[in-house]
Amino acid sequence: METRLGMERIRAARRVIDPVFLDSPLYRCEALEPVLGCSLNIKLETANPVRSFKGRGTELVADQLARSDSRAVVCASAGNLGQALAWSGRHRDLDVTVVASRFATPVKLDRIRALGATLELVDGDHELARERAAAIAQYDGIRLLEDSLDLETCEGAATIALELVDSFSDDRPVVLVALGGGAMATGIGYVLKTLTPYVEVVCVQPYGAPALTRSWHARRVISTETAITIADGVAGRYPIPEVLEDLLQVADDAVLVEESSIVTAIRLLHDHAGLIVEPSAALGIAAILEDPARFAGRPVTTIICGSNVDQAKYRSWI
Amino acid sequence: METRLGMERIRAARRVIDPVFLDSPLYRCEALEPVLGCSLNIKLETANPVRSFKGRGTELVADQLARSDSRAVVCASAGNLGQALAWSGRHRDLDVTVVASRFATPVKLDRIRALGATLELVDGDHELARERAAAIAQYDGIRLLEDSLDLETCEGAATIALELVDSFSDDRPVVLVALGGGAMATGIGYVLKTLTPYVEVVCVQPYGAPALTRSWHARRVISTETAITIADGVAGRYPIPEVLEDLLQVADDAVLVEESSIVTAIRLLHDHAGLIVEPSAALGIAAILEDPARFAGRPVTTIICGSNVDQAKYRSWI
Repeated sequence: METRLGMERIRAARRVIDPVFLDSPLYRCEALEPVLGCSLNIKLETANPVRSFKGRGTELVADQLARSDSRAVVCASAGNLGQALAWSGRHRDLDVTVVASRFATPVKLDRIRALGATLELVDGDHELARERAAAIAQYDGIRLLEDSLDLETCEGAATIALELVDSFSDDRPVVLVALGGGAMATGIGYVLKTLTPYVEVVCVQPYGAPALTRSWHARRVISTETAITIADGVAGRYPIPEVLEDLLQVADDAVLVEESSIVTAIRLLHDHAGLIVEPSAALGIAAILEDPARFAGRPVTTIICGSNVDQAKYRSWI
Repeated sequence: METRLGMERIRAARRVIDPVFLDSPLYRCEALEPVLGCSLNIKLETANPVRSFKGRGTELVADQLARSDSRAVVCASAGNLGQALAWSGRHRDLDVTVVASRFATPVKLDRIRALGATLELVDGDHELARERAAAIAQYDGIRLLEDSLDLETCEGAATIALELVDSFSDDRPVVLVALGGGAMATGIGYVLKTLTPYVEVVCVQPYGAPALTRSWHARRVISTETAITIADGVAGRYPIPEVLEDLLQVADDAVLVEESSIVTAIRLLHDHAGLIVEPSAALGIAAILEDPARFAGRPVTTIICGSNVDQAKYRSWI
């Protein structure tokens, strides 16, 4: 396996990341099992100050910057990365700028502002925000944090998997990971394929934003014209070649799910697991709903990766 | 301080309790702070297989029983203790009977059955269930687990506080604890008063079920005719004298809150913290809402002690 990631750096990352993001809950959720037909383990990445897993990666970036001469950083974000970078940056007195689509989930934008970051909105989707962030970085000569391309985001997310490796039985375990830009999927996949290669790693993306899944199956970058899904956290159109290369080596499969399944999964997690989740965090459950035979009787672990939702939309989903 | 609890046993309990119940998330929830006017730390006891803190105590009881000749145990429960005892007992092949009111929250009763315990319903409230459980224990000659009276329930809950003691600043910190039978309040209060005596420990109970709070203020047991509250987990009428004795030494105050404040607190935790909580778990936030001046600007920690809710009722609250 030849990826950009490194196990030593991932293990070392645990010593840098604020403990509030580490050792998140991992527990069996039996109440959902009769509905899903499989054994279900939940890895909960929402019980922290930014309500998503992204703090694991931004802690690494912010730590580097705090020890360098440059104290300014800019990123494009659908909301969770920006929130996490703002949190990590505030703790280290960094100058954080976040570029987001003006169509991004409002509560995520509110939290970015509340955490003291400069927020710049673009009149387009996440891909335009990425362009704008790159332009700011070049113009201002500051650090550009690129989600999924920058190894800190992948290796930060990879620490989640270090907390999973002792939990698997040998009964064909599977881990379901939301797929967006690919940071979490490559990070978790890399650790699992290195330490527990018998665990099947399945990435899940919405049909409405299928670029990286399509690319994985085609083994080459395929972009899409649009990215239309309620799962705002994974709505990219331009996969990053380096990330695809890594993903091809660490993922066993990548599947697409319908919007209606995501909504059903959100509701099931609310009613049976007592969890408020954002759509991206429901992708794993949606994948089980769409292909129960594949997972029947197997021990399945899914990463509940975020819970930043707008209340009006959330209430309509549940 | 002369209580029934012991710090050595509480520290030793961490080695007995299944790690899935230990080291629960503790994090600052800034999104709620502007609404509440204080700094808010959340100790989340719901991200585990039984969705409440009760597993910490039942693990101690079940471990004892598994190492004794007697493998049968009965308890009365509003639902969470029974669920936790069923879980701990199943892991150790114990024979668990739970007695509950037939008016108890249905989803809690469903989970007790699903976990393999024998469930017996009584046609009355929790106090009748306690009588019936005692009668079963005497008749069958098996262990009666009495919540709050049996030290394992207090010392199990006390382990929560071991996970709090390093988190306090010296700026008049306060911990808000739901008060029912008193197990959690005496347990947490004992550890905090021993290790961090500068932390104010405030117990919170609903006006509709005020027996132990009234008793604490009167310094003698006061029973009530009724216990009418949506906070089913704390709805007792007959305080236990030994528990009151302990509580008098470890609590700084005990306050009562209105039902409407509990509902508002449930909604705030849903909307701003992304947490589904049962009413007992919202008592701390309700106390802040009712007396904001008392907590203004102070660092407040509240224990989110359970999330087992019936969906129909929950949806009406939010």
